[in-house]
Amino acid sequence: VSRPTEDGLIARYFAPLAGPGGLGLADDAALLAPSPSHDLVLTVDGLVAGVHFFPGDPPGSIARKALGVNLSDLAAKGARPLGYLLTLALPSDWSEPWLAAFSAGLGEAAREAGCSLLGGDTVRASGALSLSITAIGEVPSCEMVRRTTAEPGDRICVTGTIGDAVLGLALLLEPDAAWAAPLSGDERATLVDRYHHPRARLALAPALRAYARAAMDVSDGLVGDAAKMMRASGVSAAIDLAAVPFSAAACRALAHDPLLRDRMVCGGDDYEILACIPPGDLPRFLHEARRAGIPVAVIGDVVAGSGAPTFSDETGLVTFAQGSFSHF
Amino acid sequence: VSRPTEDGLIARYFAPLAGPGGLGLADDAALLAPSPSHDLVLTVDGLVAGVHFFPGDPPGSIARKALGVNLSDLAAKGARPLGYLLTLALPSDWSEPWLAAFSAGLGEAAREAGCSLLGGDTVRASGALSLSITAIGEVPSCEMVRRTTAEPGDRICVTGTIGDAVLGLALLLEPDAAWAAPLSGDERATLVDRYHHPRARLALAPALRAYARAAMDVSDGLVGDAAKMMRASGVSAAIDLAAVPFSAAACRALAHDPLLRDRMVCGGDDYEILACIPPGDLPRFLHEARRAGIPVAVIGDVVAGSGAPTFSDETGLVTFAQGSFSHF
Repeated sequence: VSRPTEDGLIARYFAPLAGPGGLGLADDAALLAPSPSHDLVLTVDGLVAGVHFFPGDPPGSIARKALGVNLSDLAAKGARPLGYLLTLALPSDWSEPWLAAFSAGLGEAAREAGCSLLGGDTVRASGALSLSITAIGEVPSCEMVRRTTAEPGDRICVTGTIGDAVLGLALLLEPDAAWAAPLSGDERATLVDRYHHPRARLALAPALRAYARAAMDVSDGLVGDAAKMMRASGVSAAIDLAAVPFSAAACRALAHDPLLRDRMVCGGDDYEILACIPPGDLPRFLHEARRAGIPVAVIGDVVAGSGAPTFSDETGLVTFAQGSFSHF
Repeated sequence: VSRPTEDGLIARYFAPLAGPGGLGLADDAALLAPSPSHDLVLTVDGLVAGVHFFPGDPPGSIARKALGVNLSDLAAKGARPLGYLLTLALPSDWSEPWLAAFSAGLGEAAREAGCSLLGGDTVRASGALSLSITAIGEVPSCEMVRRTTAEPGDRICVTGTIGDAVLGLALLLEPDAAWAAPLSGDERATLVDRYHHPRARLALAPALRAYARAAMDVSDGLVGDAAKMMRASGVSAAIDLAAVPFSAAACRALAHDPLLRDRMVCGGDDYEILACIPPGDLPRFLHEARRAGIPVAVIGDVVAGSGAPTFSDETGLVTFAQGSFSHF
């Protein structure tokens, strides 16, 4: 089978994804001029087949996830996405249909987010396919939302629902698990979809800029990421597990096996946003989030102290065997 | 052996490399505010052990090469480096001494170039070690030097010497090759060093901005890259191989085996700059290059037409079996 050269492959699959700053990928570099009085926000995430996704996952889903995990970081910082750069390491058995589906998924996800491809590099992998995306957004000057600035008294909020992705991953690994028995086909599909397709909460960015004292995205599990944000801010937190929002599908599984809850709050890949809001701003923040169509739950409070956050439910304090999920 | 967590590893080896915009790597994202009236220039390159470097290469050399190939792109565009983001995929047998040497080499190379780490991601590799660096520089607005804008009549210039890196690589693969017999130990070391340690021509950036109509860095071989720039500009070129600059070490090898010349002008990893200069600006460009301490040779002319560039030497026209080196 004759396959295109690197230049041919770029022209066919990636040049169509380039925006004005990408210069049609005809140059060695991209050009980006942020809006006047704006700062750029930059983030990078690497994904490896067999570590962050399954080698046989639909190529469009892999692309959507790789971009989505980066867009989620931008959203948490209050940024609007501008563009991204891609490094793609292809194993020797790559195929054109794979690449066509990958680039189509990438283009679709980027269009939805309002950003475009700025540049990239395609290399030969040694081992499994891997990719790295650097995403760039902008915020009005000095308005980037940090994760290091939570203060005692702030209310802790989380978007959407927690734990769906880790259940979706578990379903892929073990479709016949006992806890999954009561789930309908639609419920299973919903959970697996949450694992495959992170939805970056970009619509929340303006409300975060206006009202959040600190924020980060939840990628490595709620429990571990909350601890990380508090540690980075030099504070602690009291979090009410009974207030953590779960989806209908997750609730049905949980009713069958209550022990799932700990996996759900410790597992990764939620790509929701954890935000610390000064109490006086909470009503306005919740109002803006509702207007943006993004569900938000208040799950606890930032407190003074340097200890790890405490988690409690109706039975009292809860501790977790595994603190945080790590992709590393 | 107990090894640090990802967070511990970041704190120990990478946080010290972060500049102000990297926020001590304590946040999920970096912040970058380009100078007023400047555009950002972005480039990304992936490197894979066994493809772009030898797995046993000194870790500091791998780091220097990964940053250097990106800085070379920025230099060719007339940009001043600001910062970079790193994705590092480590195989399961990574060691702390390796990482310490890698981060030390990276920090040193970045300091020399005046830029700092903005962010990164460390992931588990499936297969060999690989890394990807996104580098970001700035140019005064609208002054980025393109590779798509060469015009008939422009003089074609190249910096430094061509072919050293491909000979250095050949020496590593085949130290006893006949052509290498006349080389001294110092000459061998010089050639291998050119393969390991690209030196980005950052000092030439102001002269390129001022006088170059088009420029790119020579990473995939002079012959192939010249063809690429002419094709991208919709022009052709006439290049005099007798004018292509070779180092003293390369000349000694070439005297022993004249057939090496074709490998030298087709091979990769030069990381020199190919620039098209309007004839009226050539004296000033050469003067500025000399002031910057960078040797420049005039090797040909841009001509009208859509054919591939022609290469000639004292014997007449020369054709090459292999057009361009590809890392892919």
